[in-house]
Amino acid sequence: MTFAQLLRRTQKETRSLLCIGLDTDAELLPHHLRTHPNGVLHFNREIIDATASLVCAYKLNFAFYEALGEFGWHVLRETLAYIPKHIRTIGDGKRGDIQNTGEHYARALFDDLGFDAATVNPYMGHDAIEPFLKRRGRGVFLLALTSNPGSHDFQRLPVRGKPLYERVVQTAMRWSKKGGIGFVAGATHPRELQRIRTLAPNAPLLIPGVGTQGGDLRDAVRYGCTAKGDLAVINVSRSVLYASSGLNFADAARAEATMLFEHIRAHQEEFFG
Amino acid sequence: MTFAQLLRRTQKETRSLLCIGLDTDAELLPHHLRTHPNGVLHFNREIIDATASLVCAYKLNFAFYEALGEFGWHVLRETLAYIPKHIRTIGDGKRGDIQNTGEHYARALFDDLGFDAATVNPYMGHDAIEPFLKRRGRGVFLLALTSNPGSHDFQRLPVRGKPLYERVVQTAMRWSKKGGIGFVAGATHPRELQRIRTLAPNAPLLIPGVGTQGGDLRDAVRYGCTAKGDLAVINVSRSVLYASSGLNFADAARAEATMLFEHIRAHQEEFFG
Repeated sequence: MTFAQLLRRTQKETRSLLCIGLDTDAELLPHHLRTHPNGVLHFNREIIDATASLVCAYKLNFAFYEALGEFGWHVLRETLAYIPKHIRTIGDGKRGDIQNTGEHYARALFDDLGFDAATVNPYMGHDAIEPFLKRRGRGVFLLALTSNPGSHDFQRLPVRGKPLYERVVQTAMRWSKKGGIGFVAGATHPRELQRIRTLAPNAPLLIPGVGTQGGDLRDAVRYGCTAKGDLAVINVSRSVLYASSGLNFADAARAEATMLFEHIRAHQEEFFG
Repeated sequence: MTFAQLLRRTQKETRSLLCIGLDTDAELLPHHLRTHPNGVLHFNREIIDATASLVCAYKLNFAFYEALGEFGWHVLRETLAYIPKHIRTIGDGKRGDIQNTGEHYARALFDDLGFDAATVNPYMGHDAIEPFLKRRGRGVFLLALTSNPGSHDFQRLPVRGKPLYERVVQTAMRWSKKGGIGFVAGATHPRELQRIRTLAPNAPLLIPGVGTQGGDLRDAVRYGCTAKGDLAVINVSRSVLYASSGLNFADAARAEATMLFEHIRAHQEEFFG
C-alpha cells in the first residue's frame, strides 16, 4: 500500500482531514505544567487524549523538541508512542541533504522513530529526496509553497514563465513512481493551492497556515482536496494547543478541534457531496 | 566581532582553511570500534586529537547523530565539548522553518549546543534565516550551489536570465547587515564558485565536495578565497575519517589531513602570496 492509499484509508476511517501540529513550546505550556519535570510530554498526552477522535494525523515539528536537547528527543519518541496506531504521523523536520547523508535522516525518521511521513526541502534536488522514497507505505511532503512571508523571496520567482514552486511540483511528480510524494502548500495562498492540486491531482497535500497564520479553512478544503474530496491534510497547531493556558487546556483544545472538524466536514459536504 | 571576523582570526592563527566534517557513520567505524559501547564518540575524539593542529573548523552533520536517537544527540554534544575552543564549529543540519519555529532551531544550535555557525536552507526565505542572524559572532552558511548531482534540478534554473543560486546569494547579501551570512558552494562547480565569490567578496564560503565527491582542491582555494586569501572553509569528511579502517585510523587520518593542509598552504602561496 502506498502512503497516499494509507492516508486515504485513514481519512475515511476517521472522517477527518484535520492534522494537529504538536509544536509544543515549553515556554507556552499552561502555568501548572511549566514546573512539571516532564511538562511537554504530559501536555502532549493530554492533547492527544482530547483530540485523537477528531484527526487523521499528528505532525511533530522537530525544532521544538531539539530545543530541549537529548531529553527533547526522548519526549518526541514518547509522544509518538502515545499516538493511536490508526492515526498517521508526520515528522516535520524539513530535512534534505546529499544521498549518503539523506539515508541517515530517512533512517532516523522512518526506521528509528517510526514516522509515516516526513517533510523534505526540495532545494538540493532528487538525490536529497530519494532516500525518503525507498520505504513502501512511507511518504514525503516536499515543500512547494509555504505559508510564511519568506515564501515570496524564492518560491515564486519566475522560471521560464512559471513560478519556481510549480516547477518543483512538476519535477518531483516524475520522481514519485511509488506514490510516495506529496507537497506542502500553505492555506495562506488559496489560488496557488488550487494550482498545485491541478498539477498533482492525486498527491497528498499538507496544508499549514489555517488559524494563527490567517489562511481560510473553506479554501483549504475546496482547493486542497482531490476530486474525491480527500488527501488534503489540514494542519493546525497554535490555535488548538494554546486555546487555553489554564487547567482546562485539554477541554479547550478539544472544543477548538471539534469546531475545526465540523467545519471541515461541512465544507467537504458543500464541495464534494 | 562578526562571525566573518572571528573566522578570519581563526584561519590566521591556525594557518588553515581546512575543515573536517565529523560525519561519523557508526557502520563505517574501524572494526575494533564497532562493538565499543561509545564507538562514535571514541572515534571522534581520536580524530580530533590527530587533526586539531591542522584545521580551522570542524563540521558536524546532524544526520549521522540523529540516526542514533537520543544517544546520538549526546554524542554530538560530547564531541563538540572535546573540540579545542580556538577552533570554529559548524552545525550542519540544513535547517529552515517559519520564524517562530526557526527561533527554536537557532536556540538548539547556538544556545544549547553552542555551535559557532549553522548551515541553513534558503528555500523558505528571509524569515527562515533571520532567527540565525540575531546572535553576535554567530554565522550562517546558506545553501547556494551544493556539491551533489541534485544541485542541477532547481539551483541552476534560470530566473530572469540568471541561475537561481545567484539570486539566492544576491538577495541574502542584503539580509547580512551584521556580516553573519556566508554560503555553501560546492567545489564540484569551480566556475560557479568563482562567480559566488565575486557576488559575495567578503563572505565566508563553506566548500564541500573536495575528495570523495571529486572537487579539485586547487580550484577550491583559488576561487573560494577572498582577495586576502581567506574565508574559504574547505570541508573534507570521508577521505579523512575513513583513510584507514584499521587500528591506525587516527594516524592515517592525520596523514591525509596533513597532505590537505600542506596542499592548501601551497595553493594559498601560489595565488595570494
